[in-house]
This record gives sequence, C-alpha cells and structure tokens, in this order.
Amino acid sequence: MRLIVIGGDAAGMSAASQARRRRGPDDLEILAFEMGRFVSYSACGIPYWIGGQVDGPDALIARTPEEFRKNGIAVHTRHEVTGIDLDARTVTVRDLDAGRDRREGFDELVYATGASPVRPPWAETDAGGVFGVQTLEDGSALRAWLDTEKPESAVVIGAGYIGIEMAEAMINRGLRVTLVERSAQPMGTVDEDMGTLVADAVRGLGIDLRTGVTVEGLETANGRIAAVVTDAGTLPAGVVVIGLGVRPNTALAAAAGLPLGATGGLRTDLRQRVADGVWAAGDCTETHHRVSGRQVHVPLGTHANKQGRVAGINLGGGYATFPGIIGTAVTKVCDLEVARTGLGSREADQAGFQYVTATVESTNRAGYYPGATPMTVKVLAERGTGMLLGAQIVGKAEAAKRIDAFAVAVWNRMTVGEMTGLDLGYAPPYAPVWDPVLVAARKAEDKLRG
Amino acid sequence: MRLIVIGGDAAGMSAASQARRRRGPDDLEILAFEMGRFVSYSACGIPYWIGGQVDGPDALIARTPEEFRKNGIAVHTRHEVTGIDLDARTVTVRDLDAGRDRREGFDELVYATGASPVRPPWAETDAGGVFGVQTLEDGSALRAWLDTEKPESAVVIGAGYIGIEMAEAMINRGLRVTLVERSAQPMGTVDEDMGTLVADAVRGLGIDLRTGVTVEGLETANGRIAAVVTDAGTLPAGVVVIGLGVRPNTALAAAAGLPLGATGGLRTDLRQRVADGVWAAGDCTETHHRVSGRQVHVPLGTHANKQGRVAGINLGGGYATFPGIIGTAVTKVCDLEVARTGLGSREADQAGFQYVTATVESTNRAGYYPGATPMTVKVLAERGTGMLLGAQIVGKAEAAKRIDAFAVAVWNRMTVGEMTGLDLGYAPPYAPVWDPVLVAARKAEDKLRG
Repeated sequence: MRLIVIGGDAAGMSAASQARRRRGPDDLEILAFEMGRFVSYSACGIPYWIGGQVDGPDALIARTPEEFRKNGIAVHTRHEVTGIDLDARTVTVRDLDAGRDRREGFDELVYATGASPVRPPWAETDAGGVFGVQTLEDGSALRAWLDTEKPESAVVIGAGYIGIEMAEAMINRGLRVTLVERSAQPMGTVDEDMGTLVADAVRGLGIDLRTGVTVEGLETANGRIAAVVTDAGTLPAGVVVIGLGVRPNTALAAAAGLPLGATGGLRTDLRQRVADGVWAAGDCTETHHRVSGRQVHVPLGTHANKQGRVAGINLGGGYATFPGIIGTAVTKVCDLEVARTGLGSREADQAGFQYVTATVESTNRAGYYPGATPMTVKVLAERGTGMLLGAQIVGKAEAAKRIDAFAVAVWNRMTVGEMTGLDLGYAPPYAPVWDPVLVAARKAEDKLRG
Repeated sequence: MRLIVIGGDAAGMSAASQARRRRGPDDLEILAFEMGRFVSYSACGIPYWIGGQVDGPDALIARTPEEFRKNGIAVHTRHEVTGIDLDARTVTVRDLDAGRDRREGFDELVYATGASPVRPPWAETDAGGVFGVQTLEDGSALRAWLDTEKPESAVVIGAGYIGIEMAEAMINRGLRVTLVERSAQPMGTVDEDMGTLVADAVRGLGIDLRTGVTVEGLETANGRIAAVVTDAGTLPAGVVVIGLGVRPNTALAAAAGLPLGATGGLRTDLRQRVADGVWAAGDCTETHHRVSGRQVHVPLGTHANKQGRVAGINLGGGYATFPGIIGTAVTKVCDLEVARTGLGSREADQAGFQYVTATVESTNRAGYYPGATPMTVKVLAERGTGMLLGAQIVGKAEAAKRIDAFAVAVWNRMTVGEMTGLDLGYAPPYAPVWDPVLVAARKAEDKLRG
C-alpha cells in the first residue's frame, strides 16, 4: 500500500506522521511532495522573523525533510504535483529542479496544498518589491529585499492579522510604514468598536494607518515598485506587502473532480475524507462553524494540525473526527493583545441570530496588584436562550488567552447566565475577584433580563 | 422590612449590595454588623501588602463603610453579633468600643461570618509575635510587629497557599525564613509530583523549606515568641506565622440551631438559604463539589462573592442559584505559577474514581518565540468515560490562567477526547500550535486507549 501526500506543511505532514505511527513501512509506504524547499514550518512566525524578534528560517522549521525520512516518510521538496488521476490512482509530479515529470501511483491520497494570498488584478506585477507572506520562501524573499534594497518606506495593504503583524515588523526594522485598509476599522474579525482600540494601538506604534481607503493600482519604475495608488492619493513605497487574505489552493482538486464547497475550499466529511481513499486537511479545505452552522474557510495552523492528525489517524486504521471550529483567534499588536471566539456581530447577523451585546472594562489582575492594566471584553448572547454566541477581548497583558475560557464555553453552548457561576482561577496576581470573563457574562445576563 | 447582615466582608456585603440594587430603602432597611474595623476588603492581598508589593491596608479595601452608607446600607464596624434568636427574629449585638449590648430585630438575616485560622492546642499563646493572616487586622498586627520589632528570622507553619505566600513576603522583607510542612511536599492541593516543582521554587527563593516535619510547640521568652519546637529540632523565630488552613465560624449559627454539614460549614440550599428568611454565604458555608459530588469547605473570595450575590438576588426578590464549585485555584510563588482545577489524585481516589493521569512538558509560547518558558501540565481522566476529572499546571509565565480552559471543560463534563478538538487561541506569542492544554488532553486520550 502506498500513501501520497500533496503538500508538506502542517496538515500534510501531521497526516503522514499519524499514519506512520499506526502503520509501519512494510504496511504503508509514504511519499510526500512539496513544491517549496521547506516542510513542516510555522508560517505564523514569519512576521516575527521579518521583524527581527526570531531567527529564521531555521527556527521556524518544526521538522526537516531528513527527520521525516528517518521516520520512514519519503519527503520530496521542490516537487510539484501537476495532475491527479483518480481512476488510474496516479499523480503527475514535476521535479522542479530537474525539470522532469513523472507519474507515481497511490492507494491513498492526502490533499494538503494550503492556500495562497489573494492578489487582485492590480497586484499582478513582475516588479520587484511586492510580496505576500504565506510561505517561508515568501519570507526569505522579503527579508532579502529589505536587507539588500534597504527601502525606507513600506506600504502594507490590508489591516487584518497578517497586515498588522507585517506593518509592525517593518516599523521594528526602522521603515516608515503606511497601512491601508478599505474598511472603517482594522481587523475586521472583531467588531468595529473593538477595532477602534486596535487602530489606536497601531497608530501608537507610529504606523500611518489609513482606513476607508481603496487601493487602485501599483506604480512601478525600472522593474521595481515605486508607489501604491489609492482613491485617497498615491503612497510612495520601497516595498509593498499584500495582506488581503488567502484562497484555498484547489485547482488541482477541482480538475480531478473532487468536490468543492461554496467557500471554495475542499468539502470533507467528519473524518476529513473527500472521496474513496482521498483525504484533505488544512487551508485548502472548508470546515464547519459550530455556532453559525455554516461552512467556512478559516486558514489557521491550529486547524491544519488537527485536521491533518484526524486524517492520519483514520488513514492509519483508527477513528477520529474533526468537530469543526468556533472561530477562535488571537493576535498581538505591539503590547496590545486582541482575541475573539465564536461569532462577531456581523457574523451573528448573517447567521440570523438576535442577540444582546455587553461590553465591560476590567483589569487583568486585582486592581491593587502591580502591573494591573485595563482590558475591554465584549460578549454576544442570544436573545431568549442566553446562549453565548461569541466574545472579543482587547487588553494590554494577560488578556488574549482569556479567550480560551470563552471558547470552551461557546463550544459547550453555555448560556451567559450559567457562565456567571463558573469557577475560574482567582488570585490577585492573575485576576480581580470577579474575572473579566465573569463580569462580561454578568452584564450580558443583566441585559437579557433587562 | 429589615435585613441584618452578620459579617461585613465579601459575602455579606455582596448580598447587601445586591439586595439594595433590587429593593430601595423604603422597602428594605439594611443593617450590617462587622466585628472588625474594615469591611469589603481583599484578604487575598494581605501577603503582597506584607511583602511590600502593595500599599495597605487602604489599597486592599474595595469599599469603605461610608461608601456603603451612601448607598443606603447601614454598616456598623466594631460590632459583634453575640446571639441570634430565630423565634423572636432578633440578634444581640455588642458595640465593642462602647462595651454595650443591644438587640436588633430582623425580617431577613444574612449569615456571613467567614472563617478563622486553625490554631492547634500548642498554638494557644498570648506571647507576642505569633500571627494568623485572615483579616486586615491580622495583617496590620503582623506589619506592626515586623516594623517595630524587626525580627531577623521567621518560621511559617504550613506550606499551603497562604503559608508559601507569607514565607515569600517575609523573604522579600529580608528575613531568614523557615517554612515547616508536615507532608512530604508543599501545597497539598496539587499532587506530590507537582508539589516537588513548587518545593524547588520555594527553595530557589532562599526559603528553608522543611517537609515531613511536625510542629510540637512554641517556646516563648518574656512574653514573646522565641522558637518553634518540631520533631526535627527547635527553630529560633522572631516571628511566627501559622498557615494551617481555616475553619468556618459557625458557633453563633450552631447555637441558634441552624444546620451544619459534616465539613463544619453551614448547609445552604441552592439559593444560599439556610432556613426561612435566613441566608448564608462565604467561608462560613459548605458547598457542593460538582465533580466529586461531595460537600466541601473551600474558603475562597471568589466563591464568597458569588454566593453573596446569589443570596442578595434572592433576598431582593430575584432568582439565582449557586451551582457549586470545581476546586479551581491559582497561586504565584515568586515567578512560578501554580494552578489546579477539578480533582487531584487523592480527591479522585477518595471519591471512588478510577482514572489515568497524563503529564506533559510544553511551553507557554511557540518554542521559537522570545520568552518561551517551560510548563508542566497534568490531567486526570476517568477510565471508561474519558471524562476530565481535573488538571494541574506548574509553569513560569502565562501558565496559571490556562487552568480556566480546563475549568470550563471540567464544568461541562468534557472528555479528554472531545478536548483534543477544542478551538483554543493560537498565535506564536501566546501558545505553541498545539496549546499545552490540548497536548495534555491528547496524551490522556492516548493512555485511555492504551
């Protein structure tokens, strides 16, 4: 029996590793093909590498191809799968360095091709100095540009997680940075009122944040980026980073007749199966949102790892399911911590919920304890049932991971009323006697009873 | 209608405030009697005041008697209730400063007398320099002794939360500190293997921790403490702090015929009611442990606040219940963070559970992110069902409050298998891609499957 894995990052290599744990080399041969030079790395760490807080790229690599090979997983980097024939049970692979194609047969297939940065038509350019940041190669190319070209000014397009992290990374390197966002507030994954807190922090870093601004094109000169043209003027730029989100890489799957969902991601069953003997995991798939009930595309390393593990367990003869997601995400903007879980207001509206919101100001520690800093917590609770639909946190320290208590509560469909009784950790260095999580739940309950 | 509150700390004043919110002064007169000089303060902050990290006692006071009075709650400090006549609906109150007794009638009564430090027979002494730390007055007395007598050496008896916090506070003040504990490891609320990590940290602070040592008596000279006599030698001491836990203050309630549980705490119903028109909350009560199903006495400010609130809501004509506890607790020992929730091994044994344990080493942040430090996580899961029974965490930073994710999971009777799918917050500054919580759940699940 032979397993072929397409894509050597978190999802694919988790699947390969789990399958190997359960089935030895005599039972299952495992081949993994990866287009790039690296496998199994933390793309989430790229902004910190660019910003100089982390050494890269080696530090970001969880396991090298050699380590996988020692474990009986034949990893081939710089190998691109260009076709899948499900009837013949073969893939066509191009050795990118040798420039040769070959066919490889499989019994089982894991499709884990990830996602690619969205590039609007105006961003299609061969000019130097325009980057996305999705792969380690992207990170290397950007680092090299910054090191050798020493641009003085950067424009980052899109103020989501990646855009903000990249803007901060380049401010840390001493560039003048403009961050352009089409919406009224940065970080559209949190509500606008929470987004204004993020905007303040971003501007506090010295980043020139321009919201409500639409990019219309790029100006190049001598094959290099020169400026970003917007509906509010032209912004000179020695380097441009595009952070407009990503789209699942599914062209190969679609050509092979594998099913895509409305999000554009591959549609899997609970076991991450796409078709007979074909599995998919990670950023190329869509998944189930447990609160909205909708299919969603949420490209995050934490889901990719879990989904890959689930696929690998099933491949290996075990049984595991991926239970869906609830939209938890955390990020750091300088010393500001931002977190969310469940549904934000826009998502809750779209899903058809009616709800109350409650926003509270509290602190991370007892008010009298050294280092106590403010924290804003917002919760959404369904009218009638009182079910917690979502929560958002913005704070200065020890704030973001408080989202996990909300996440487990959302997961279990707790009501905010039930939550007020929760036995959370209390000691002055860690929380006020009423943890901010509980204060927010109390206020939402009060509003529901209103 | 008149409400009398006995005891002016967290539980009593929470009840009074909630009742006042719902019923105006024309509808309900509220009198609160407090033996001490202070009401509504954070006893948990006393060690930090002693250690000099926090200014006291004012900073530890949440609200003064005057503030309550402005809110229509007649607070009488230095007033001790010495008798309750349930038939006549009166209490006897002694004005401690004036030395006079009087009777006051009530329609509703809140009993919130708290708890007092356990004092073994050998600790009954009038000698100066021997302290418990339960009230702000205790804290003041200890501060005064340290400031005026300037002892060079301290012995702290009992290495639970309070004992360790007090030992650290006195090391911070420059005393030589010996910490004596009868058990093999400090902090009996966590398992012994986790306790050894605490022991290392305590010793790392320069505290002379002596475990497996039993105190047999105190030596005094000229009306002052001179030494602590143990079964392993005599320890000279210029000041002694006793941290052997507390017992509920229920003598008054028992004399009035109110029901006590086997733990010695007052037995309440779900609404914190003890008898017709009589309510109780806080450290003087026992409560229900949601995992073991047992009645327990867990004196913590966080429970006292919640129970007081519940009593006050019901008193005010609303409806609320206290759902019980799951034994969550967090503490800080220098830069070591210690947390627990649910049942430890000894409690699980006592309750009759069979279970597996899984202990993992992980980090608070992505391994490559600056400031990543190790964290040990131990979980207990029931055989067969896989239900999470409890969790313990010892780490250096951003460790303790991770217990909240476990706490909400225990609360909802999640299995460790379900937990492996949880959508917890992930970003390199906050967690590895598999949060330590998930890694521990995975390992426990693996062990359950054998």
